[in-house]
This record gives sequence, C-alpha cells and structure tokens, in this order.
Amino acid sequence: MKTIPPLDKKLELTLQHKIDHKTKPLGALGQLEVLARQIGLIQQTLTPRLSKPTAFVFAGDHGITEAGISPYPQAVTAQMVLNFVRGGAAINVFAKQMGFELHIVDAGVNYAFDDTVPVLHHKIAHGTQNFLSQAAMTPAQCQQALDTGAKLVEAAVVSGSNVFAFGEMGIGNTTSAAAIMSVLCGLPASQCTGRGTGLDDAGVQHKAKVISQAVAAHSGSLSTPQAVLQYLGGFEIAMMVGAMLAAASQSAVVLVDGFISTAAALVAAKMQPNFLQYCVFSHCSHESGHALMLQHLGVTPVLNLDLRLGEGTGAVLVYPLLQAAVNFLNDMTSFEDAGVSEANA
Amino acid sequence: MKTIPPLDKKLELTLQHKIDHKTKPLGALGQLEVLARQIGLIQQTLTPRLSKPTAFVFAGDHGITEAGISPYPQAVTAQMVLNFVRGGAAINVFAKQMGFELHIVDAGVNYAFDDTVPVLHHKIAHGTQNFLSQAAMTPAQCQQALDTGAKLVEAAVVSGSNVFAFGEMGIGNTTSAAAIMSVLCGLPASQCTGRGTGLDDAGVQHKAKVISQAVAAHSGSLSTPQAVLQYLGGFEIAMMVGAMLAAASQSAVVLVDGFISTAAALVAAKMQPNFLQYCVFSHCSHESGHALMLQHLGVTPVLNLDLRLGEGTGAVLVYPLLQAAVNFLNDMTSFEDAGVSEANA
Repeated sequence: MKTIPPLDKKLELTLQHKIDHKTKPLGALGQLEVLARQIGLIQQTLTPRLSKPTAFVFAGDHGITEAGISPYPQAVTAQMVLNFVRGGAAINVFAKQMGFELHIVDAGVNYAFDDTVPVLHHKIAHGTQNFLSQAAMTPAQCQQALDTGAKLVEAAVVSGSNVFAFGEMGIGNTTSAAAIMSVLCGLPASQCTGRGTGLDDAGVQHKAKVISQAVAAHSGSLSTPQAVLQYLGGFEIAMMVGAMLAAASQSAVVLVDGFISTAAALVAAKMQPNFLQYCVFSHCSHESGHALMLQHLGVTPVLNLDLRLGEGTGAVLVYPLLQAAVNFLNDMTSFEDAGVSEANA
Repeated sequence: MKTIPPLDKKLELTLQHKIDHKTKPLGALGQLEVLARQIGLIQQTLTPRLSKPTAFVFAGDHGITEAGISPYPQAVTAQMVLNFVRGGAAINVFAKQMGFELHIVDAGVNYAFDDTVPVLHHKIAHGTQNFLSQAAMTPAQCQQALDTGAKLVEAAVVSGSNVFAFGEMGIGNTTSAAAIMSVLCGLPASQCTGRGTGLDDAGVQHKAKVISQAVAAHSGSLSTPQAVLQYLGGFEIAMMVGAMLAAASQSAVVLVDGFISTAAALVAAKMQPNFLQYCVFSHCSHESGHALMLQHLGVTPVLNLDLRLGEGTGAVLVYPLLQAAVNFLNDMTSFEDAGVSEANA
C-alpha cells in the first residue's frame, strides 16, 4: 500500500474566492461550501465533476455470533445478500434513486452461493472465527481482504468512478466494530456498544461484556491497526478498509456510512492519517457509540436522520448534497457576471 | 379560506405495519420512516407518489430597509430576481438538479419589471411601507397577497403538483420575519434577531432595537395572525402564507425552507393549527432565531447544514430524502416476500 499524500492546499484560496463571489451572502451555503472546497481539493480543480458513483456492499459473517450478541440468526446475512441480488433491500432502492452502480461483494458469508448468483465472489472463508477464543482471521486472510478491496476499487476507478459509497452486511458486525473502536479509541467497551439491530438493555450489557473479554484476551497482540483488524474485525470490514484506502489513494471521494463503516474508516485512518481528508462522513447514526467515534476522528457528519441500517444507505442518501455542492460551484453566477451588488463593506 | 382538516389517522397503523415489515430492523430508517408515514397520511394511501414538484420563490421589498437593517441595498432584490430569471442563482441550480419546476413571483419588488421578464407578475406595490412608522401594508393588500398565493398553488395542483417548496427573496425580510416571530412566539426581539445576510454585532443590536420599537408601536393592533402579517410582514411573506395554506388544504406536501419561510409557516399555523401536519421543515438554518422558532412550533427539521440563503434552497435540497421515503415504502421487499428471518422475540 503506497502512502496517501495530504491534499495539496495550493488551490484552496482560489476555490474559496470562487465560492465567495457566487451570488449569495458569504458562507450562506454552509456545509455545502465545505463539501465544494473538499471535492475541489481532492480533484485539484475549480470545476470538479462527480463521475460514475459506485457503491460496494461487503458482506461477511462473524464467529462471535456464537456469543449471542445479536437478536438475528447468522443465516440472515446470506438471506439479505440474496435480497440485495433480487433488488428488494433499502440499498437497492436508494442506489437506484441516486444513480449509483451497486456491487454486492461476498467477502466471507457463511453460505455457499451458487456461482450464478450475481455477487462479486471474493469469499475469504465461511465467516470469521469467534474472536472470544482466537483471532477472527489469520494474518494472511486479513491481508487478502485488504488487497481484494483495493483491487475492486482500482478497477472501478479505471472504468471512470471517482466517488464511492461503502456499506456492509453481516450479522454480529456491530460487535466487531465496537471492539475495534474500543481498542483504537482507547474507550471502555460500554461506551462503544449499542443496540445493533435491536438488543434490549440486558442484551447490550452482555454484548459489552463479550467485547471487554475479547479485547482483554488479545491485549498483547493489538499493537498495530492491522492487528486490531485481524483479531477483532470481519472479512467485510477488512475488505472495506482496503477499498477505502485505495479510493483515497486514487483521489476519489470516500462516502462513509454508519457505525461499522466508520470503524473501517477508523482503522484506515490509523494506518494512513491523510486518508481522512478524502472522506465525507455521511451521517451520524442512531447506534450508540457512533457519535463518539466521529468525535474521536474529529469529523462532522452531514446528515442526522437517526438511521441505523448500514448497507451503505446513509452514504448513498447523502450523494445529492455532494452533487449540489459541485453544481453550485460550477453553475452559479458570480456577483460580477450577474450585475448584483455586493454587501456594503 | 376553508378550514384545513387534521390528517385522517385511520391509515396510520396499516402504514406502520407496512414500514415495520420491510427487510430492515424496526425503526432503522429513522427520519425517513417519519416522512413516509406523514406523506402516506397526507395522501391517504399506502403507496404515495410525489408528483411534479414545484418551487415558488416570492420576491418583495421592504420599507423597513430605510432603517438600515441590512448590509445590502434594496436594489439587490430586483437584481436577484433578474439573476433567477437568467438561471444563475443557487435556487436555479438546485431546482434543476432536483427536478423542480421553478416559478419566480414578483409579489412586490420595488422595480418596474418589463412585461417580457418571465416572472409571474403579481406585484401588490413597489415594496411595503416602513413598519416603524405605519402598517407594512393595508388590510386589502394583505388579503390580496394571501389570495394570490392561494390561486397560484391551486392552479399548480390542477396541473398535477402535489409537493411544493416555498422560498423568498427580499432585502430586509429577516427583519420582518423576526418581528412576526417576536409577536407570535411572545419572545423579545433580541431572541428573534440574527445576522441576516451578514450584519456585525452592532448591526444585529440595531436591528433588534428597530424590531422592538416597531412591535411596541403597533402593539394595540396585533390581535390576530393576519393583523401581525399586515403590520409587520412583507408581500412575499403574505403571498407565501396564502400559498402554504392552499397547498395544505389541497393535501399537498409543504416544504418549508429557512427563517423567513418558517415565519410564514408560523403565521399559517396560527391561522389554521392543522396546517403543520402537512409541513416538512426542511432544515434548521444558521440564522439565529430559527432553531427557537422551530422549537416553538414543536417541529423537527430534517437537515442541519448551516444554510442561511433562503430562495427555497433548503426546501429543494431536502427533496431527495422525501423521494427516498416514498421509494422505500413502495419498493422495498417485506421479510416474508424476501424469505429473510425476523428478529427473535
């Protein structure tokens, strides 16, 4: 993995000048102006274009489900993958509405999909190991997941994509994401653990205890972000980390979804701190811990809609606001061209 | 004006059942589920459709600009109307992106537009009177503005529109909106007054003082919402009130924009309390006082993007989220149809 460079800020003042001379009061487009500046800097142009938006949904199963941390059975991961393939899930509906090309990736679902099922077949294994008793995956599996994610994005960039939404599906993966957060943010499990797909209070307490135990059991082995990913992550999370890093290193815009995707972005940011400059954090989810993780990263989410679905839904839903940012930058008139008086000094 | 009925809630449980059986955890689409329920109830159907979205931008001038309450000269109102007509303003860019039909309405700009200028020519007068010294408009002018706004919407409904964004342009109109807010919310002017297009601290203090004086001067005459509108409003605000009430009475969805549009919605809600059930408050603007006005109305805005532009921009920007709400309700599969297991009880 090559080092992701920081954004070259030479264009920043020129971009700001262009934004400030549009026919509107200074700063009146708020967060859209922030997005316009960021996308301009990522693309190193005053006239950015968003091209062929692409969503990857990585699916994987988790050995930790043995510990009873989800109200849904593990079989739901495969069932939802088939639902994605048939077009019936929320991400299908939203990706279609927003004009995203949608790819479903089998990163490690515990189900033998027939070759004819139209997913991208990159299964590393039939689910991870139960990380209460051993590492979730081997170092080689973790590296394979990172490399596969990177290759998927690199191919999409070659075909013309410069903006990516990343999502996931995997029963048990809020537990994995919370464990990663606990280690990389240095916070107790209780502050990282939420209801996931719908646990009650007792369920959340049990889940936090499982996470504490797992983190304690592996504490001697968690010295690098990649080790944290290998011991506590999931195949879909690791593949997403590789995909996110590749997108940033190709100067694409990275749309981060909710709690689990943000945990992947957290790993990526600990591996390569400049990575965050390429990210748009699409929303703050209802999942307890997400706001805290965003705060730890020092980032501001665009939407606050109490979403807690994953699948990349938030990342795709934010896209029209990115388009609006690019469109106002390219298509609004300046005060001078419009013959509109500016404010008195 | 006929009385706006409350939403008929008979369908609510059936709508909720449909939402709850989609292939997602209960409640996982957060605010989109709230929007889906509301739009279903407004349209009285389990399969709502948003049809021919239409944006009206009402423009008018304000005599109160004589009091030095804006950093921009009054001439900017007409200049911006011409900018709208040429397609160079933010609302043009966003309305085009979001598929809105955009109408610019001259409600009372202090400029004689040529008949060939493609705005809707409904000028009541060349700006309101300075409400520091007299009522902003006569009772007849106020009624004319209300009636005109209603007729515009009724014609659009006949042509197939069932969702409306309302915006405005008028130098000085945050002063008018803050004065309305102060009276109808029973709050001191200082809590209602913000920077508008960019006042400094001294400018804001002066503006609040002007508002206090005007409200005090007319205090004996402000006994009904329509009187408040007549004494302290603007032609664009009054026309918007009429348009909003007509949209709700035709069972259309009302997309409310920022501070000034919310002041219009406040007047409409005081005239007809059921009106609010038809409104989506698109965003909380950066303008000081907006959050407080939304709180007074007991409503939750969808977006928080620090916008403070007006023109209906926020109301149009929120539209893809309404589409997403309608689309998931119509197009997502149910657990049963998808063969996906539900959560354990």
